[in-house]
Amino acid sequence: MQFYNVKSVEETFSIINQNVTPHGATVTLPLHQARGFVLAEDIIAPEDVPGFDRATVDGYAVKAQDTYGSSESNPQFLEVVGEIEMGEEVTRVLEKGQAMAIPTGGMLPPGSDSVIMMEYCENLDGLLNTYRQVAPQENVIQKGEDVQKGAQLLAKGTRLRAQELGVLASLGITEVTVYRPVRVGYFSSGDEIVSYQTQELKVGQVRDINQLTISALIEEWGGEVMFGGIVPDDEEQLKQTAHRLYEQVDFLVMSGGSSIGAKDYMTAVIQSLGDPGVLVHGVSIKPGKPTIFSMAGKKPVLGLPGHPASAMLIFLLFGQTVMRRLQGEAERSLPRRIEARITQNIASSPGRADYIRVRLAKKEGEWWAEPILGKSGLISTLVASDGLVEIASGKEGVRQGERVPVIMLR
Amino acid sequence: MQFYNVKSVEETFSIINQNVTPHGATVTLPLHQARGFVLAEDIIAPEDVPGFDRATVDGYAVKAQDTYGSSESNPQFLEVVGEIEMGEEVTRVLEKGQAMAIPTGGMLPPGSDSVIMMEYCENLDGLLNTYRQVAPQENVIQKGEDVQKGAQLLAKGTRLRAQELGVLASLGITEVTVYRPVRVGYFSSGDEIVSYQTQELKVGQVRDINQLTISALIEEWGGEVMFGGIVPDDEEQLKQTAHRLYEQVDFLVMSGGSSIGAKDYMTAVIQSLGDPGVLVHGVSIKPGKPTIFSMAGKKPVLGLPGHPASAMLIFLLFGQTVMRRLQGEAERSLPRRIEARITQNIASSPGRADYIRVRLAKKEGEWWAEPILGKSGLISTLVASDGLVEIASGKEGVRQGERVPVIMLR
Repeated sequence: MQFYNVKSVEETFSIINQNVTPHGATVTLPLHQARGFVLAEDIIAPEDVPGFDRATVDGYAVKAQDTYGSSESNPQFLEVVGEIEMGEEVTRVLEKGQAMAIPTGGMLPPGSDSVIMMEYCENLDGLLNTYRQVAPQENVIQKGEDVQKGAQLLAKGTRLRAQELGVLASLGITEVTVYRPVRVGYFSSGDEIVSYQTQELKVGQVRDINQLTISALIEEWGGEVMFGGIVPDDEEQLKQTAHRLYEQVDFLVMSGGSSIGAKDYMTAVIQSLGDPGVLVHGVSIKPGKPTIFSMAGKKPVLGLPGHPASAMLIFLLFGQTVMRRLQGEAERSLPRRIEARITQNIASSPGRADYIRVRLAKKEGEWWAEPILGKSGLISTLVASDGLVEIASGKEGVRQGERVPVIMLR
Repeated sequence: MQFYNVKSVEETFSIINQNVTPHGATVTLPLHQARGFVLAEDIIAPEDVPGFDRATVDGYAVKAQDTYGSSESNPQFLEVVGEIEMGEEVTRVLEKGQAMAIPTGGMLPPGSDSVIMMEYCENLDGLLNTYRQVAPQENVIQKGEDVQKGAQLLAKGTRLRAQELGVLASLGITEVTVYRPVRVGYFSSGDEIVSYQTQELKVGQVRDINQLTISALIEEWGGEVMFGGIVPDDEEQLKQTAHRLYEQVDFLVMSGGSSIGAKDYMTAVIQSLGDPGVLVHGVSIKPGKPTIFSMAGKKPVLGLPGHPASAMLIFLLFGQTVMRRLQGEAERSLPRRIEARITQNIASSPGRADYIRVRLAKKEGEWWAEPILGKSGLISTLVASDGLVEIASGKEGVRQGERVPVIMLR
């Protein structure tokens, strides 16, 4: 296979980011089904949270001024005029010299401005002795302090985690408009590849692993898979399958035939889907060099290597980025690697990014990454790996004991 | 609330690990539905992978010995006697002095022991000029080299990731016995708490946030939620709900009523579920001190604080550990924190673990964690947070610029 447009890993990410745009289709979901989806609308707070001044501790609602100068040896004395129940509207106005018992979360009575903690006062037959002074607003969350009515609470492009759902719930919002899941078409190719459900293999045949691994990742990232089957290394059949799937999905992925001619078919097949066509034809990465990234109209197309380990790594790196962008998630750079020390020297070619499968173990309080030996095509090494050590393309390798970035796989 | 059995974070983890055992109930699933489940059986390889000697490059299958001494200036010459197709059983035996074209993944013919890469030879009208020598087994994965028939491939207790599904697929295994999802019962309590679907709040009322956040986390971790509703601060009603749910689930979780008396009800309610009863009553942690962990028979019970931010943090830390253990996942210590520098000094009491909500930003090539200001009860701070900085109980705080561990929340 001749690679006519080999890019670095960084260039490939940049090409993906420049070309892939959100699919834009939305769906409205009840809150309890919206976890993991990406907001397609800004959320403006329809009301204040909290809707009233709330106590943050158990104690007594007071006027702060009435407690000034209080100490253990010199308490002030306030009249306890009532007890506030949770969930109850308080209408009685607190007057100077008065206090009311209040639980955490309870509503402050009008006229009060602070809460003195239970620990710092004593109710002696209706006479509250205050042993500390409090400041105005002390131990209180004010109306609207958490979320102010009319403020933008969440922006379009936010992925909804448990906490976003919680905040939406607090405002009485029960459904949200989100981007629908990304539809990903996938097919495997290769004359030797047979369904993984094949019980008895003929000599020379290999079961389709990529279907399982790639589909599992798509689903893990919230996408929907449309499986196009296993296609032999035949240009016409490959084209038919690719075009048929392409029409129905947002993102087309295939894993490469590995016979000598098939690799060239794949490029032609991908190119035939539409312009601008193949943008990346070969990536300076190990494993995974024979990767193709293309845009056919507004739809991204990713051609993965046939080797299961390579296909999975490439899909982990680039496929996830394509899916996030299609899904409309706002771009946000966040740290995604833990650090560990490497147990041995590893050489790497400058200009190429290497991803080394490792086991992780703690020794003397530090994490060490131990490369998993074995040829890179072995699927058993994938199962043993806890993570991938990344040797960026600028580096010529790493030395034993050096701190290296690790992409966690567990 | 009097805490009569306050434990450190480390002690609480250790109590959970000592007491919570797998629920043990299994279910058999087709492979494509088994992602994220935990294996309930050891998997023994029923066959060799690969099932035949495979080429790892495109080139020519040869006898290594025939290439010895080859160089650019002094090639050896072999007779090309055929071309191997993918997925085809090869029966022709390679004789001394012969070579056969072979694609990556193709089956080596009997008699051959290695593959010379296309780049290092030239086929001139059926005469192969070899410009390098190869060693026996070079560019070959031997039969059974990846997975050996009869070997234990995966152990009981392994959580099935994409790669485990792939390896199972490669062996023709189409279904697996896994532990069924953990069933978690959850209810909210508090006189002021109303359903999050309530459109108009009365003054003093607060919508139930914890139902959404806790359920979302349970589902994210592969569990099933049974929601027991919102229970007022009444000992009898709390007991009834707790006992009813307890009977139907593997793990009972509740979030605490926050009225003064309710806190004591909760302990009594949890204790009433069975022996040994409450093991942790208060954790030295901020936020989240009023946490209760109990074992009622073989079922763990977790009482969360009422504050949404505290409830979520406690459930993230301890709830996930309880669920992993119930699910039967083999214990494996792995690094779970990234590192960043903290932007300001933060004081912490020795003996108490603190979890600080932070935003993360990269400055001059390094990640910095910036604490999110605001009272800890504010749910808006949860939404803004990318992660939690952990100040372990042994530390008295952190200094500006110090490297700190961060639990990622995005």
